[in-house]
Amino acid sequence: MEHFECLFCRKKYPVDVFHPFCPSCSEPLLVARSRRPRAFHLEKELAIEKCLDFLPLPEIVPHLSLGEGQTPLIRLSRTMKKFGLPPLYAKNETANPTASFKDRGTVVAVHKAISLGLKKIGTVSTGNMAGSTAAYAAKAGLRSFVFVKEDTSREKIFSAGIYGPVLFTVRGDYGRLFRQSFEIGKKFGIYFMNSVDPYRIEGYKVTGYETFFQLGSRPPRYIFVPVSAGGHLIGLLRAFQDLTSEGLIKKCPTFVGVQARGCSPLARAFRQKKATFSRFSNPKTIAHAISNPNPPGGNIVLKIVRENGGMILGVSDTEILKAQRWLAEQEGIFCDPASATTLAGLLQLSKKMSFGARDQIVLVITGSGLKTLDDMDTFKVNAQESSLESLANKIETVLS
Amino acid sequence: MEHFECLFCRKKYPVDVFHPFCPSCSEPLLVARSRRPRAFHLEKELAIEKCLDFLPLPEIVPHLSLGEGQTPLIRLSRTMKKFGLPPLYAKNETANPTASFKDRGTVVAVHKAISLGLKKIGTVSTGNMAGSTAAYAAKAGLRSFVFVKEDTSREKIFSAGIYGPVLFTVRGDYGRLFRQSFEIGKKFGIYFMNSVDPYRIEGYKVTGYETFFQLGSRPPRYIFVPVSAGGHLIGLLRAFQDLTSEGLIKKCPTFVGVQARGCSPLARAFRQKKATFSRFSNPKTIAHAISNPNPPGGNIVLKIVRENGGMILGVSDTEILKAQRWLAEQEGIFCDPASATTLAGLLQLSKKMSFGARDQIVLVITGSGLKTLDDMDTFKVNAQESSLESLANKIETVLS
Repeated sequence: MEHFECLFCRKKYPVDVFHPFCPSCSEPLLVARSRRPRAFHLEKELAIEKCLDFLPLPEIVPHLSLGEGQTPLIRLSRTMKKFGLPPLYAKNETANPTASFKDRGTVVAVHKAISLGLKKIGTVSTGNMAGSTAAYAAKAGLRSFVFVKEDTSREKIFSAGIYGPVLFTVRGDYGRLFRQSFEIGKKFGIYFMNSVDPYRIEGYKVTGYETFFQLGSRPPRYIFVPVSAGGHLIGLLRAFQDLTSEGLIKKCPTFVGVQARGCSPLARAFRQKKATFSRFSNPKTIAHAISNPNPPGGNIVLKIVRENGGMILGVSDTEILKAQRWLAEQEGIFCDPASATTLAGLLQLSKKMSFGARDQIVLVITGSGLKTLDDMDTFKVNAQESSLESLANKIETVLS
Repeated sequence: MEHFECLFCRKKYPVDVFHPFCPSCSEPLLVARSRRPRAFHLEKELAIEKCLDFLPLPEIVPHLSLGEGQTPLIRLSRTMKKFGLPPLYAKNETANPTASFKDRGTVVAVHKAISLGLKKIGTVSTGNMAGSTAAYAAKAGLRSFVFVKEDTSREKIFSAGIYGPVLFTVRGDYGRLFRQSFEIGKKFGIYFMNSVDPYRIEGYKVTGYETFFQLGSRPPRYIFVPVSAGGHLIGLLRAFQDLTSEGLIKKCPTFVGVQARGCSPLARAFRQKKATFSRFSNPKTIAHAISNPNPPGGNIVLKIVRENGGMILGVSDTEILKAQRWLAEQEGIFCDPASATTLAGLLQLSKKMSFGARDQIVLVITGSGLKTLDDMDTFKVNAQESSLESLANKIETVLS
């Protein structure tokens, strides 16, 4: 039978999607690993079908899927050359149906909601998860409830609101809103599939498996991933733990979690060698998607990244914006500031340590720049005006 | 040797990417079909590698690709049920690297540019093609030149400008700008890969092949596609002509081109049974991406759609906005107004004719709603405000 499990207490608990937290230590619970025989089914159409044996789902219902996953792994040749880096790749999760990695987790959690006979789902989000949850609810015919912070940008509200959820902008502390959503969920039968939902995290594993196959059935040496609540990193790392326990790889990649320095509770705790983090005061960063001063999966991330031999870095907004622009201008990838922390973190780290010439590095690009255009005024996008008549002369000037 | 070909004069001409128009009748030229043996290579990684034999390229250079294609074909179960339609699918081209179908064409044209030793490419665009061309230029290390209309929205300018092209907003007639771009291109050695570029059109064929395979190596009965300049429909139809000539299918799907009624020169000419269209005066529609009053591929579209037994429809902005909202709220697909014309056209047509119960219908969803958020004020996105304290009560009210 399926159970939840606490990574700290090591205890197992019955599944309860309305309150997936440890009764003793309050940490988020994960789906306990099953012992059933597992194989990949690469001949299948959907990403979650290919990886079904590794997911806590009895079956895949194709009409719950929007075709998430199977995203490109792009070699960043120009970045490698410029900075003298070993083989470097971007796993481009912006190619997902709602343009972020969240869809990977949402589709699995929605499967769980349907199998439990639930009719209502919800989420607390800074933006990407709101759109993803509302979209999959629409596809599945579920009613969705989305709570966002009161200062959420117009474009983030629209990009979720279009799917027709019940949408509230909520005044007050985001951490309290997160906890309160579970009370509301329990009371009204709404499954709040938030950032560290155990089934959502299982969905993120698929990105790890795909990366492994895209590299020719080999793990990369390093994976850089933005860290906010922690769910994404936890899922990715669990994917490679699965591959290890199946005997498909010998060694997990080293994980580098990256936070925006302006809101970096985990990078700080890691630097200070603390087992648990403390709340980050006065968060301020352009990387809104990862600006979580009190990340619910933070202590799990600290624990598993240490066990993995990895690290958690902080990068400045200046580094982030420079990396975002570089990825667009040199590699043709337009990501949001949160995603750009991965390249910023790599460039920061490459000044302090050297990588082996064959060390493959993967940056996980989590969200699209199209949802953060409101932040673009920080850039000078160089649009010049011209009449038809003077255009040729102006081009000549540009070229001279 | 590779040639260009005029569908009207039936004459062949040498390849000239700087002026791909018929010297006699001024119509856009296409790449003449090659007679080399052709097969699909489905075991390959990239979409263009799988279809290489069907493309006018000697080889694929992987580092020119951003992982375009292999987009989901989503069954629209809820729409079928609601409107009593036969099997209905959305080919979701918004999952491409720059969130539109344009990437399919750009990657092929950029291959051609590189093989010709060119260092500069450009485009004239209302938005999607600007971003796509600039992104692939960045990836390939080419300099790009992008001309957009003076009233192009801030978000469209940003979503192209981020890739670092030379970007001009140009005052004056868009048709004249289109023609002038080729003069500028010839003068300064800039390959303007515009809407009806012969290599761009070849790239769109890949969407047709993929759809065929995703339907279990069968063609759909109908394909609905938005029509602006005409290049996309021409490419898609050529794909199925290829499949016919290879003996893989017996009959081409019937093509239904859809235009916004507020700018529908081809729908009008089709209705009036004219062989050629005339310029549409005072275009006005919310579907900016297909608002082209003087489509360069228009006469080819009229010719091939008639030969195909298909049709060209016009739909109102009201129908478009309703269809856009339906696709988001019921199917979880957030497309731009231009893409929504496909569902609007289908619903309009379904009132006049009946489809066979087994007729498979594919709607080609060409671009993402994330690039047209500026137009969203026409919607009421229902965001309510709440304090943390009153949230539970408000949810209770919603549910009661």
